[in-house]
Amino acid sequence: MYKPKSSLESPRFCGIRTFMRLPYVNETVEADFAIVGVPFDTGQSFRTGARLGPSHIRDFSSLLRPYNGVQDIDIYEYCSGIDYGDIDVIPGNIHRTYENIELGLEPLFNADITPVILGGDHSITLGSLRAAAKKHGPLSLILFDSHTDTSEALYGEQYTHGTPFKRALEEGLISPENSVFIGMRGSMVTPNDLDDARELGFKIITMREVRELGTDEVVRQIYERVGNHKAFLSFDIDFYDPVYAPGTGTPEVGGATTVQGIEFIQKLKDINFVGFDLVEVLPAYDSGQLTAIAASNTIYEMITLIALNKRRRVQEEKEVASLESSK
Amino acid sequence: MYKPKSSLESPRFCGIRTFMRLPYVNETVEADFAIVGVPFDTGQSFRTGARLGPSHIRDFSSLLRPYNGVQDIDIYEYCSGIDYGDIDVIPGNIHRTYENIELGLEPLFNADITPVILGGDHSITLGSLRAAAKKHGPLSLILFDSHTDTSEALYGEQYTHGTPFKRALEEGLISPENSVFIGMRGSMVTPNDLDDARELGFKIITMREVRELGTDEVVRQIYERVGNHKAFLSFDIDFYDPVYAPGTGTPEVGGATTVQGIEFIQKLKDINFVGFDLVEVLPAYDSGQLTAIAASNTIYEMITLIALNKRRRVQEEKEVASLESSK
Amino acid sequence: MYKPKSSLESPRFCGIRTFMRLPYVNETVEADFAIVGVPFDTGQSFRTGARLGPSHIRDFSSLLRPYNGVQDIDIYEYCSGIDYGDIDVIPGNIHRTYENIELGLEPLFNADITPVILGGDHSITLGSLRAAAKKHGPLSLILFDSHTDTSEALYGEQYTHGTPFKRALEEGLISPENSVFIGMRGSMVTPNDLDDARELGFKIITMREVRELGTDEVVRQIYERVGNHKAFLSFDIDFYDPVYAPGTGTPEVGGATTVQGIEFIQKLKDINFVGFDLVEVLPAYDSGQLTAIAASNTIYEMITLIALNKRRRVQEEKEVASLESSK
Amino acid sequence: MYKPKSSLESPRFCGIRTFMRLPYVNETVEADFAIVGVPFDTGQSFRTGARLGPSHIRDFSSLLRPYNGVQDIDIYEYCSGIDYGDIDVIPGNIHRTYENIELGLEPLFNADITPVILGGDHSITLGSLRAAAKKHGPLSLILFDSHTDTSEALYGEQYTHGTPFKRALEEGLISPENSVFIGMRGSMVTPNDLDDARELGFKIITMREVRELGTDEVVRQIYERVGNHKAFLSFDIDFYDPVYAPGTGTPEVGGATTVQGIEFIQKLKDINFVGFDLVEVLPAYDSGQLTAIAASNTIYEMITLIALNKRRRVQEEKEVASLESSK
Amino acid sequence: MYKPKSSLESPRFCGIRTFMRLPYVNETVEADFAIVGVPFDTGQSFRTGARLGPSHIRDFSSLLRPYNGVQDIDIYEYCSGIDYGDIDVIPGNIHRTYENIELGLEPLFNADITPVILGGDHSITLGSLRAAAKKHGPLSLILFDSHTDTSEALYGEQYTHGTPFKRALEEGLISPENSVFIGMRGSMVTPNDLDDARELGFKIITMREVRELGTDEVVRQIYERVGNHKAFLSFDIDFYDPVYAPGTGTPEVGGATTVQGIEFIQKLKDINFVGFDLVEVLPAYDSGQLTAIAASNTIYEMITLIALNKRRRVQEEKEVASLESSK
Amino acid sequence: MYKPKSSLESPRFCGIRTFMRLPYVNETVEADFAIVGVPFDTGQSFRTGARLGPSHIRDFSSLLRPYNGVQDIDIYEYCSGIDYGDIDVIPGNIHRTYENIELGLEPLFNADITPVILGGDHSITLGSLRAAAKKHGPLSLILFDSHTDTSEALYGEQYTHGTPFKRALEEGLISPENSVFIGMRGSMVTPNDLDDARELGFKIITMREVRELGTDEVVRQIYERVGNHKAFLSFDIDFYDPVYAPGTGTPEVGGATTVQGIEFIQKLKDINFVGFDLVEVLPAYDSGQLTAIAASNTIYEMITLIALNKRRRVQEEKEVASLESSK
Repeated sequence: MYKPKSSLESPRFCGIRTFMRLPYVNETVEADFAIVGVPFDTGQSFRTGARLGPSHIRDFSSLLRPYNGVQDIDIYEYCSGIDYGDIDVIPGNIHRTYENIELGLEPLFNADITPVILGGDHSITLGSLRAAAKKHGPLSLILFDSHTDTSEALYGEQYTHGTPFKRALEEGLISPENSVFIGMRGSMVTPNDLDDARELGFKIITMREVRELGTDEVVRQIYERVGNHKAFLSFDIDFYDPVYAPGTGTPEVGGATTVQGIEFIQKLKDINFVGFDLVEVLPAYDSGQLTAIAASNTIYEMITLIALNKRRRVQEEKEVASLESSK
Repeated sequence: MYKPKSSLESPRFCGIRTFMRLPYVNETVEADFAIVGVPFDTGQSFRTGARLGPSHIRDFSSLLRPYNGVQDIDIYEYCSGIDYGDIDVIPGNIHRTYENIELGLEPLFNADITPVILGGDHSITLGSLRAAAKKHGPLSLILFDSHTDTSEALYGEQYTHGTPFKRALEEGLISPENSVFIGMRGSMVTPNDLDDARELGFKIITMREVRELGTDEVVRQIYERVGNHKAFLSFDIDFYDPVYAPGTGTPEVGGATTVQGIEFIQKLKDINFVGFDLVEVLPAYDSGQLTAIAASNTIYEMITLIALNKRRRVQEEKEVASLESSK
Repeated sequence: MYKPKSSLESPRFCGIRTFMRLPYVNETVEADFAIVGVPFDTGQSFRTGARLGPSHIRDFSSLLRPYNGVQDIDIYEYCSGIDYGDIDVIPGNIHRTYENIELGLEPLFNADITPVILGGDHSITLGSLRAAAKKHGPLSLILFDSHTDTSEALYGEQYTHGTPFKRALEEGLISPENSVFIGMRGSMVTPNDLDDARELGFKIITMREVRELGTDEVVRQIYERVGNHKAFLSFDIDFYDPVYAPGTGTPEVGGATTVQGIEFIQKLKDINFVGFDLVEVLPAYDSGQLTAIAASNTIYEMITLIALNKRRRVQEEKEVASLESSK
Repeated sequence: MYKPKSSLESPRFCGIRTFMRLPYVNETVEADFAIVGVPFDTGQSFRTGARLGPSHIRDFSSLLRPYNGVQDIDIYEYCSGIDYGDIDVIPGNIHRTYENIELGLEPLFNADITPVILGGDHSITLGSLRAAAKKHGPLSLILFDSHTDTSEALYGEQYTHGTPFKRALEEGLISPENSVFIGMRGSMVTPNDLDDARELGFKIITMREVRELGTDEVVRQIYERVGNHKAFLSFDIDFYDPVYAPGTGTPEVGGATTVQGIEFIQKLKDINFVGFDLVEVLPAYDSGQLTAIAASNTIYEMITLIALNKRRRVQEEKEVASLESSK
Repeated sequence: MYKPKSSLESPRFCGIRTFMRLPYVNETVEADFAIVGVPFDTGQSFRTGARLGPSHIRDFSSLLRPYNGVQDIDIYEYCSGIDYGDIDVIPGNIHRTYENIELGLEPLFNADITPVILGGDHSITLGSLRAAAKKHGPLSLILFDSHTDTSEALYGEQYTHGTPFKRALEEGLISPENSVFIGMRGSMVTPNDLDDARELGFKIITMREVRELGTDEVVRQIYERVGNHKAFLSFDIDFYDPVYAPGTGTPEVGGATTVQGIEFIQKLKDINFVGFDLVEVLPAYDSGQLTAIAASNTIYEMITLIALNKRRRVQEEKEVASLESSK
Repeated sequence: MYKPKSSLESPRFCGIRTFMRLPYVNETVEADFAIVGVPFDTGQSFRTGARLGPSHIRDFSSLLRPYNGVQDIDIYEYCSGIDYGDIDVIPGNIHRTYENIELGLEPLFNADITPVILGGDHSITLGSLRAAAKKHGPLSLILFDSHTDTSEALYGEQYTHGTPFKRALEEGLISPENSVFIGMRGSMVTPNDLDDARELGFKIITMREVRELGTDEVVRQIYERVGNHKAFLSFDIDFYDPVYAPGTGTPEVGGATTVQGIEFIQKLKDINFVGFDLVEVLPAYDSGQLTAIAASNTIYEMITLIALNKRRRVQEEKEVASLESSK
C-alpha cells in the first residue's frame, strides 16, 4: 500500500518533494493512481515557464492531509497512490514529446492506474488523450478553462496550447457530444471564437453562465451531457480568477473562486473518470505561492474522486460477496 | 485605420510595448481615441512609484484581444486608436506638469480624439480636467475610488493626489451636482471626511452602499445624476479590493471585485464621455502583475464604450443617410 | 493622552515604525490599550518566519486613520494607546518564552491596559492566556482560525502552534463551554480532528457553516455562547482566504474575506474582552503586503472595540454622575 | 538623424520603452545601427523565459546617456540609430523563426545598417549569422559565453541554444580559424566538451585563462585571430558571473565582472564588426534588474564601437577630401 | 548613556526598528551622535521610492554589533548614541522640506551631537549642509558617489537630486578647494559633465582612477585636500557597484565593492567630521536586502569614526589632566 | 552504480528534485557518498527559514554536470552516489533532532558512505559531529564561516547555531589543535569574540588574513594544521560575500567570492575527509537563486574530492595488484 509519509512522524517540510509526500515509484506497481509530471512549455503563446509547474505544485502539496472532510473519506484508507515522477519531454519538439507522453502513460492505463497529470502547458493534454483513448476509446472531455483551446492554429502552428482540442477531435480521441467546457470568458480574437467551438459540437458554459445558473445547475448539465461515458477531466488553472492563480500563462479577469472550482470537482463524484490533468501553472508569477495552493487543493479533490470510486467498488464487491455467500 | 497588430501574425509578446499593441503615433491623426501616459507621482502621500504605472500597464495589455463578448463588438471594426506615448512630466514640479498635461491633451480634444489617460497618481486628473473643460466646459465627474480626494490640503500642500477634486471644483472644471463618487471606504482622518465632500455638492455612494444597493441601482443613480452631461470618468485602481490591485498607493480593504468594476463601466455605455483616466498603479507592489491585469481590463472596457458610441453614431448617420436617400 | 502622530503634520511614511504611529512607551502609563509584539516562531510546523510578523504589520499600519466610519468613533477621542514594543522571546525555547510573555503582560493586565498582541506563531497564545487568566480567571476564548489548534502533540512535541488550546484547557485557562472556534476547514490528518475538539467542549463553526448560516447567525451563536464572560479574542490570519493573507504558515483555501472578518469583529462590540491577539503573519510570502493590509485592518477593529467600550463606560459614568448630581 | 529623446526635456522614465529611448522606426531609413529584438526562447534547455528579454533590456536602457567617457565620444554626434522593434518569432517552431530572422535582418544588412540584436536565447544567433553571411560571406565569430554552444544535439534536437555554432560551421556561415570563444567554464557533460569545440577549429580561451592571461593578452590574441575579417560579436549574458547577471538560463559561477566584459568590448574597437547580439536575458530571475543593467551597458559599448567606426570613416573621408581639394 | 539593547538579553529581531536598536529619543540629550531619517524622494529623476530608505536600513541594522574589530573599538564604550527618528518631510515640496531639515538638525548641531542622516534622495544633502554650515561655516565636502550631482538643473528644476552641490556652492555652504568627489563613472549627458564640476573647483577622482591609484593614494589625496577643515561626508549608495547595492535610483556598472567603500571610511579617521549622510537607498529593488546590508555596514563605519574621535578626545583630556596633576 | 540521470536523455528540469538528479535511495547501498538533508532551523538567532534550504539547493543542483574540468575527473566514473533524502527533524526540539541526526547518519558512517549534509542552520553540525566522532574519534574540523560559532550561549541557550563548536569541543568530538576556522569577519559583540575561540585552541584565519596571505598560503596552513587527521569540512554559506549568497541568516559584508571558496575546496584534495556539510541557506532572501547557485557548486566540489579520493584508492589498489601479479 503506497501512501504519504505520516506527518505525525515526519514534519511536512522534510523530504524529497513528491506530490503530497507520496512514495516516488517509477514503475507500475499496485496502485490506484499515479501523479505524473509533464514539464513541457513549448506550446505557450504568451508567458512561458510552465516547465517548472510540476515541481512548484509538488513543493506546496506537502501540506495536504489525507482526510477530506467534505467528502468524508480518508483517501489512503482505500487508495494506493504513487508519484511516478516526470515524463521526459523534449523542449522545442512537441511531436517527440507527445510520443514520450503516450509511451509514458500507456503502462499506467494498462495497469489500471489512473494518471493525475501535472502540466506543463495545455498542449500536453493531446498526448494524454492519445494514451487514454488508445485504451478506452473516444472520451468525454470535461474542461475547466477560461479558453476553449480549439483554435485551428496559432501563428500558423497547429500544435500549441491553444489548439489541443481541435486536434483531439480530428483524431477521434474525444466525443464532442459528451463533452462540456466550463468557464470561458475574456476578450476574444473574433466574435466567432466560442461559436466555432460550439460548431465543433462542444457544449460551452461561459463563466457568466456559471454565475447566472449556479453550481448545481451547471453540474446537472455536465451529468446530462457526460452520462456514463468514460471521461477525462482537464483543468486549466486559469479557470480560476487571477487573484487565486496569478501564476499562469494567460490570466483572464472574472474567473472562479477556489471554493467554486473545488465544489465542481466534488460534485462530479459519480462520473467515470479515467484520467485527470491540471495545467498552465507558471511559478515565475507566483511569489506568494497562491497558484500552488490552488493547484494542490484542486488535485487533492481529483484524488479524492478516485478514492471515493474505489470505496464504492470495494463496497459493491463486498455486497456481492456477502450476497453470494448468503445464497 | 489604426489598430493593434494581429496576434495571428505576431505573437503577443513581440514588439515595443504600446497599449494593446496599438501603433505608436505621437501626432493627432484620424483616430477615435488615444492612450496617453502621464507618469507623474510627485503627488503621492504614502507609497510612491506610480511613474512606472503606464509602462507596467502597457506591458500586460498586449494580452487583450479586440472582440468584447459582453458588449458584442469588435472594437477596431469601428474605432481607430493610437498610443500617443507619454506626456513629459516634471518630477517634483506639479504646476509645470499640469501645464504639460494641458498642452499635451489640447490637440487631442481639438481633434475629437478621446483621451484615455494612464496615471501616474491621482493629482494628474486636475490637469486632464483643465484640458477637458477648456474644450467642453464644466464636466460631470464619475469617480470610482476608495477616497474622495477632496481634501483642502495634505501637509499644507494644495496640489497633491488627495486634493484634485477640491481644486477642480474651485476652478469650475466640474459640476458637482452632476457628479458621482463611488466606492469610498476605509478608516478616515476625521468623521467629516465624507460629509465635507457631500457639502461640496458631490453625491457619494460608499462601498458599503454599493454592496447594499447592488450594481443596477447604483448605475441607475449615476445615470440620474449625470444625465446628458458631458462626462469624465476617473478610475482610481484602489476602487478595487487590494487582492485585485495590490500595486497601489493607499490600499483599503473591502473594495470591489474586478467583475463589479468592469460591469459598472459596461453599464455606463449611454453616458456621453469626453475623457477617461485610470490612476494610482504602482508596479513595485505588483509582483504577480495582478494590478496590471485589473488595470488593462478596466481600460479595455473604457475603449469599448468609445467603440460602442462610435458604432451608434455610424449607424445613426447611416439611418439618416438612408432616410434621406429614400426621400 | 497617547495617540498617533497627526498625518496632517507628519506624512504617514515618516518615523520609527510603531503600530499606527503610536508613541513607543515601554512602561505601564495611563493607557487603555497597548500593542505588544511577540516575535516567536519556534512553534511553527510547516513554513517558518513569523518572528518578522510584528515589524511587518507595524510597517503597513501607518496608513490607518483614527476615525472608524462603520463604528462611528474617533478612536483617540476616547482612548489612549501605546506601542509597548516586543516581548523578548527566546528562539528555540518555548518555555522560557512563555515565562517572558507572562512577565511582560502581567503589568499591563494589572494596570488595566488591554493588550493587543502581534504574533508570532499561534503557540504564543498559551503564554498570553496564562497572563490573562492569572488576572481574570478562566476565559471565554473566541478563536478565528482555519484550524482548531487543539492537537495533543506535533511530532511528539506538546508545545507548538498546533496545540495551544489543548494545553490552555488542561491548565484551566479557558472555559470551553463559553468558547467558540470559527472558520475551520481544509484537509485533515484524521476524521476525528474536529470531533476531538468538540469533545473537549469547544463549539466549532466551520467555514462551511459560516457560509451557510451567514454572519448574523454566527454572531448570535457567539453571543449565546460567550454571554457576559470575560473573553479573549485570538485571530489566526489564516482565517482569511489565502488570497487575502498569502503570508502565513499553513494557508487553506476557502477562507473568509476581509470584509467578513472585519464585520465579525465589529459585531462583537458588546463582548467583554480582556485581551486580543493576531498571529501567524509571515512576511516572506507577502510580497505585495496583502497580509499586512489584512492584519492591520483587523487589529484596527479590535482597537475600535476597546474605544467603543471606553466610550460606553465614560457615558455611563457621566449618566451616573448626572443622576447623582441631580439627586 | 535618429537619436534618443533628450533627457533635458523629457525625464528618462517617460515614453514608450525603446532601447535608450531611440525612435521606433520599423523601416530601413538613414541609420547606422538598428536595435532588433528576437524574443524567441524555444531553444532553451533549462530555465526558460528569454522571450521577455528584449522588453526587459529596453526598460532599463532609458538610463543610458549619449556620451561615453572612456571612448570619448558622443555616440549621436556621429551615428544615427533606431529601434527597429522585434522580429515576429514563431514560438515552438525554430525553423520558421529562423526564416523570419533572416527576412527581417536582410533589409538592414542591405541598407548597411548594423543590427544590434537583443535575444532571446542563443539559438537565434544561427538565424542572424545566416542573414549576415548571405551579405558578407563567412564571418569571424567572437563569442563571449560560459559555454561553447557547439553540441551536436540536445535531447536529440539539432537546433537549440546549445548547438548554434556547430550548425553555423556546417552551413559555412563562420570561419573557425578566425573565430574566438572567450569565457568557458563550469561543470561539463563530458571531458571532451571543450576539446570537441577545439577540434572544430575554434580557439577557446577559458575563464580561467582570462584570469591568468589578463585582459590585454586576451585582446591581443583576439586581434591576432580575427585580423581584418568581417566579424560578428555574440555575447551571452552568462559570460558574466551570476551576481552580475542572475537572470539567465544556465548560470555558471566564476564568470567575468561587468568591468571586464565592458573593457573587452571597448578594446575591440578596431575589429570590423558587421553585427552584434546579446542573448539569454531572463527577467524572471532578475528582481533587482541587475541583469538588465549589465545587458544595457554591454550593448551600449557595442553601439559605441559603431559610432567610433563611423567617426573614423568620416574623418578619413574628410582627410581624403581635403587632400584632393589641396591637389 | 544611550546604547543599543544587548543581544545577550534580547534577540536581534525583537523590538521597534531603530538603527542598531538604539533608544528612540526625539530630543537633544547627552549623546555623541544621532541617527536622523529624512524620507524625502521628490528629488529623484529616474526610479523613485527612497522615502522608504530609512526604515529599510533600520530594519537590517539590528544585526550590527558594537565591537569594530578593524578599528579595535567598542563603539558604546565611548559613545552615547540615539535614534532621533525622522524629519517630517513635505512630499512634493522641496523648499518646505529643506526648512524642516534645517529646523530639525539645528538643535543637534547646537548640542554638539553629530547627525548621521539616512536618506532619502541626494537632494536632502543641501538641507543638511545648510544646517551644518550655519553652525560651522563653509565645509569640506567628501562625496562618494557615481555622479557629481552638480548640474545646473534637471528638466528646468534647480532643486533635485542631481543639483545639490551646485546650489551648496552658490550658497557658500561648501568650500570647493577643500572638497573631493570620489567614484564618478557611467555614461554621461555631455562630455563636459565632469569638467563642469572641476571648473566649479571640486577635485574629482573617477572610479577608474580609484582602480588605478589604489585606496591608499586616494586617501592620501583626500587628506591633502581636506586637511584640518571641518568636513561633511556624503555617501551615495550608488558609489557601490549595483551588485552590492541594487536598490538605488540610478545604478551605474563598475562601482566599488563594499570592502573598498568601508576601507575608505575607516582610513578617514583623522578627518574632522561634523556630519554624515548616506542617501539613495530604494527598497523596491532590494529583494535580497543587499543594499540594506551595504548601507548599514557603511553607516556603522561612520559611527565608528565618531567613537574613535571621542576616544581620542577623552584620552587627550586624560593626558592633559594627568600632566596637570603631575605638575 | 548510482549516478545522475543523463541529461542527454532527460532534460535537466525534469524529475523529482534530488541533488544533481541522483537516485533517491533511503537505504545504505553500495555508494561512496550520500546527500542528506537536515531541514532544521530552530537554532537560528536572526533570520529564520533554513528548513527550506535542502529543497532549495536540490532544486538548482540539477544544472550540475558530471565532469569537473579543473580537477579533471568525471565524478561518476569512480563514484556511486545517492540522495538519501532528509533526516526527520523535530522543529522546536534540538535535542530530539540531534538524536535523529545521529541515528540517521550512523548507518552511513558504518557502511563507509561519506555523508554530504545540506542544512539547515549551523546547530545541526553538532549532531553530525557526534555521529562522525562515534565512528572515527575526535576529528579535525575545517570550518569556512564568517563567525566562529563558539559562543557559550545565545540568550541563555546552549544549543543554537552560534554555539555548536563550543559544545563539540566539550564533548570531545573535535581536536582543536588540528582544526582551522577560515573567513571570520564582521562586527562583533565583544573584543574577545575571536580570542575566546583562539583560547579554546582553534586556529583562526580571518577574512582579512585570507586577503593578505592569499589562497595558497592559507591552504598551506590548513594542511600544516590538519595533517593526516580525519577531517570534517563544515561550510557556512555566509563565508561568501552577501552578493554571492544573499539568502542566509546573518550576512556579513567582505566575504569570499565563489571562485575563492571553490578554489579552497579544490586544493584540499589531499585531506582525509570523513564528512561534509553546507549550512545556513535561506531561500526567502534568494529571489534570483544566487545562494542556491553558490551552494550547489560548492557541494559539487566536495563530491569531487570524494571522487578524487576514490580514484586514488582504486589506482593504488591496481598498482598493488599489478605489483603483486608481477612478483
